[in-house]
Amino acid sequence: MPAPVFLPPTSYEYARVQRVQGEARTPADDVLAAEEPLEIRLGYGPSGQREHRTLAVTMRTPGHDEELAAGFLLTEGLIRRREELLGVRPCPDVQKPEEQGNVVRAELAAGLPLDLPRLERHFYTSSSCGVCGKTSIEAVHAAACPVLPADGPLIAAPVIHQLPERQREAQAVFEQTGGLHAAALFSPEGELLLLREDVGRHNALDKLIGAALLAGQLPLHRHVLLVSGRASFELVQKAAVAGIGVLAAVGAPSSLAVQAAQDFGMTLLGFVRQQRYNIYTHPWRIT
Amino acid sequence: MPAPVFLPPTSYEYARVQRVQGEARTPADDVLAAEEPLEIRLGYGPSGQREHRTLAVTMRTPGHDEELAAGFLLTEGLIRRREELLGVRPCPDVQKPEEQGNVVRAELAAGLPLDLPRLERHFYTSSSCGVCGKTSIEAVHAAACPVLPADGPLIAAPVIHQLPERQREAQAVFEQTGGLHAAALFSPEGELLLLREDVGRHNALDKLIGAALLAGQLPLHRHVLLVSGRASFELVQKAAVAGIGVLAAVGAPSSLAVQAAQDFGMTLLGFVRQQRYNIYTHPWRIT
Repeated sequence: MPAPVFLPPTSYEYARVQRVQGEARTPADDVLAAEEPLEIRLGYGPSGQREHRTLAVTMRTPGHDEELAAGFLLTEGLIRRREELLGVRPCPDVQKPEEQGNVVRAELAAGLPLDLPRLERHFYTSSSCGVCGKTSIEAVHAAACPVLPADGPLIAAPVIHQLPERQREAQAVFEQTGGLHAAALFSPEGELLLLREDVGRHNALDKLIGAALLAGQLPLHRHVLLVSGRASFELVQKAAVAGIGVLAAVGAPSSLAVQAAQDFGMTLLGFVRQQRYNIYTHPWRIT
Repeated sequence: MPAPVFLPPTSYEYARVQRVQGEARTPADDVLAAEEPLEIRLGYGPSGQREHRTLAVTMRTPGHDEELAAGFLLTEGLIRRREELLGVRPCPDVQKPEEQGNVVRAELAAGLPLDLPRLERHFYTSSSCGVCGKTSIEAVHAAACPVLPADGPLIAAPVIHQLPERQREAQAVFEQTGGLHAAALFSPEGELLLLREDVGRHNALDKLIGAALLAGQLPLHRHVLLVSGRASFELVQKAAVAGIGVLAAVGAPSSLAVQAAQDFGMTLLGFVRQQRYNIYTHPWRIT
């Protein structure tokens, strides 16, 4: 497959997948949108007494990182004007290999007042890993998280094709709004067990997992989860906490979603629609 | 329009819109997915010395709130097992009308260890308002945020139809991955000025706004922004910080996105695709 022209090399990754179309399954190459954590560090305080701290870690596609940090500072209310930002630059003095290229430092104007307790309260890292409890860039790359049991085949390949329509039927009324994500839990036979919807896809999944938790049904090793949108690291991580064996997404997975699913021992499917899908990781659960 | 059957009444809202199809513009009713902030409060500590605190505020569609809180606690690593959660229930003793139905309290098992400094660092409210600096449920409903200037018509209705294709052409290579959101800035004549992409739609917008900030181009009162996905409160809020006059979304807006755009004085368009779109707020900028 030729490299995409004009695409910054850090913005995508290649993956070897199994492409399923109808009853045929063939190996193929796929291009993934890159997802990596960006740590935004802040330099602040009066001249001569500068302090530095981590403000936030956000999952992003590498590229235009300085702009991302500048925009984040503005739209989250830390700065109000261009002059309050002295500059943003990649942080050269990172300690760990996985931080390389994933840390920027923003220098605020000397003396700009910062409400630090408010920052403590109101910013967080979306890269925090509920599986292993780690909460830094390191966590995202950690392979030390618990791994799902390799307990044999789970679902027949043709059953996968039926899941999107069963999900859509169950949420037919919600489709009036055109604005809701869904997470649906299926048995290995393709029976719809539980459906939850929300404007936020992570909320739809948290609702579903919360319902299973409250009903004493965790872990969900022998279940298949279908999500309506794309598969991000965050969704894979949440599904892993619930012990879900197969995560199927109607949309595309990100690079880090594939890497996390590989590490967690989870079977990840993408583009599950119109009698097609790609198997990204652990194909042995699909017979 | 008949009420959708089986849909919890808190999950949707009606909106009066102007529906544009080709050159025709007609008033119509539209159903919006509800988006409201949910505050999750935590009860913890040994028996007899219970403490309570706000853990997080998340933008969600009302319904199954207890499940959402339970799932959030599990997938974010605050609890590991069902037994560690004594219960979740709606909070009856809220102070303000806008909090009614939007606060739940989760009681953790007595003595369950909590890493409070880690919580301080790693959870935040996505309802924080960069426009007015308020950071609670109150902020989401506050009408005290700065309002865009009512400076007359901005863009001709037929030009809107051309924007999605111009955006897609500019991101043709990125479409290989199927996994990137885009934010594109246009002149009133429909000229594409700036395009940024990311796996996270809020990041794509922050990159675009950051680029404009660093180039000294803010505020963007006389520009049109097109986003590839749905329009949430968060996107409207970020666009408002940059002073964007017209926000057009390829997907559906949420109820709170429409309310915020109304309050901020922003023109909000949804379902901008295939020679169609809806005008939700401030139609006077579209001639």
